Amino acid sequence: MTRRAILEALSDGPIAGPAIAEELGISRAAVWKHVETLREAGLEIESGPDGYELVAVTGYDGPAIECGLEAPFTVEYHDSIGSTNDRARELAAAGASDVAVVADEQTGGRGRLGRAWESPAGGIWTSVLLRPTTSPANAARFTFAAAVAVARTAREAGVDARIKWPNDVVVDGDKLAGILTEMEGEAGRISWLVVGIGLNADVDPDVLPAGTTSLRAEGGDVDRRIALQGILEGLYDRRDLDVLGEWRELSTTLGRRVRISTADGTVEGEAVDVTDTGALVVETADGRETVTTGDCEHLRPA
Amino acid sequence: MTRRAILEALSDGPIAGPAIAEELGISRAAVWKHVETLREAGLEIESGPDGYELVAVTGYDGPAIECGLEAPFTVEYHDSIGSTNDRARELAAAGASDVAVVADEQTGGRGRLGRAWESPAGGIWTSVLLRPTTSPANAARFTFAAAVAVARTAREAGVDARIKWPNDVVVDGDKLAGILTEMEGEAGRISWLVVGIGLNADVDPDVLPAGTTSLRAEGGDVDRRIALQGILEGLYDRRDLDVLGEWRELSTTLGRRVRISTADGTVEGEAVDVTDTGALVVETADGRETVTTGDCEHLRPA
Repeated sequence: MTRRAILEALSDGPIAGPAIAEELGISRAAVWKHVETLREAGLEIESGPDGYELVAVTGYDGPAIECGLEAPFTVEYHDSIGSTNDRARELAAAGASDVAVVADEQTGGRGRLGRAWESPAGGIWTSVLLRPTTSPANAARFTFAAAVAVARTAREAGVDARIKWPNDVVVDGDKLAGILTEMEGEAGRISWLVVGIGLNADVDPDVLPAGTTSLRAEGGDVDRRIALQGILEGLYDRRDLDVLGEWRELSTTLGRRVRISTADGTVEGEAVDVTDTGALVVETADGRETVTTGDCEHLRPA
Repeated sequence: MTRRAILEALSDGPIAGPAIAEELGISRAAVWKHVETLREAGLEIESGPDGYELVAVTGYDGPAIECGLEAPFTVEYHDSIGSTNDRARELAAAGASDVAVVADEQTGGRGRLGRAWESPAGGIWTSVLLRPTTSPANAARFTFAAAVAVARTAREAGVDARIKWPNDVVVDGDKLAGILTEMEGEAGRISWLVVGIGLNADVDPDVLPAGTTSLRAEGGDVDRRIALQGILEGLYDRRDLDVLGEWRELSTTLGRRVRISTADGTVEGEAVDVTDTGALVVETADGRETVTTGDCEHLRPA
């Protein structure tokens, strides 16, 4: 908490050590110690005639992402990794929790059902390992929470991002981001859960598959570190999973005619709602059907 | 299918090969081949003056349990194993499906939350590995299906077994069986699911913990192989997960005053219903609460 308070004290320009000590009600020695710790974490804090000064944090690595992050996640950063979800699963098997695995690029990024997910350098590729004391029935709402967090972050950057059921964020029908939530547990209780988030941030859309876009392509000007922090905080802030209202607001699927391919066949009709467990309610010619998951095609504009 | 048909033809006493061939519309050579296959699987089929005769199947091992089993499960039998659930999880990791791991005894049997489950020789310890194309939200209904299957099998043996939420089968409040459903998957789709069933069958209750009983102790006279087959078939027959009605009928929790200890605290009130996702609806002094999982204590008779 004090580390965070010191970062805040430093955020308005140079400030003398004694002034920080007075502001926070701690000793000058404690201020010095905290500043050293922040420096060890990789932050550039200069000592000048006017006191300490935080040089702008511009990097994209563990300490930079943790710096000022208002969510209790440890960040494990990789320049390149096969799949952040796979790494988070390894950490889960080792007993870890509350870790955000972040990579500049993934060489084997995965989407739903083991499909490939292109993850060139410049994107936001992260997998958050959590151990929520809740039921697997609520797993889909972590996907919803992450989709809302991503869509809000993109919208703050001026991009008209909306959520496509079950697990994508799109701009004008083109895929901007995808969520892959994986979990293990008992019937009544999740053991671990990994929320994988892939957001095409500072990525040239030419290197992405057809039907895909990126924040850069849509004119979204973001600092990748700040955007990632916003997403992690957005996910954390929605940990009570009370996200259906926001999800509905940001959804581009509800109200549309959809065709959904599932393991059991095809369902076609108007998407009218989502359930607590993340299923889509579709009004078909034969009545209402509740579809758990599947590939969803939007048949006409809302 | 023909193997099963031949077993049925053999079930009414000795029958000549040509008669079987005619009954099933296959060649005599095919009958001979199927009989040889059954013999290789460990069944005693005698050839006498009146034809083939199936000597009673009395063993408890893979072929004996598979013999006549009306569910498409392969049986992997162990005289002794650490935990059938752990073995089923290994098989899941190796890509298997539709396997029932069965052991005469478990040396490290597990219940919910990693608790120990005493599993001496003579019990029914089995873990069924499935890959249902459904959502983790439905995982609890596999627990329900297994509990119904176990309770029905015990009741057919004359034991007044009833289901105690969330995952036990009890007789007069004493634990007769427990179910441990574990799973891995994506938010919308189960990858694998293991339904672990522990039923104190032919077990001396003196070797079991306090508050526990067994079919033997309750006067339930069962052939263990037949009982296990009944349970596996009962689980398979309920694979559509339309089990809430049966579960409610057999429940001893509904209608009772209960105290439930959860990760978030204690809920006390009258158990009034269960939900599709396996949660218990409790009418408390402050209104209805829906409890996902926890340790449930029955406070007074229904």
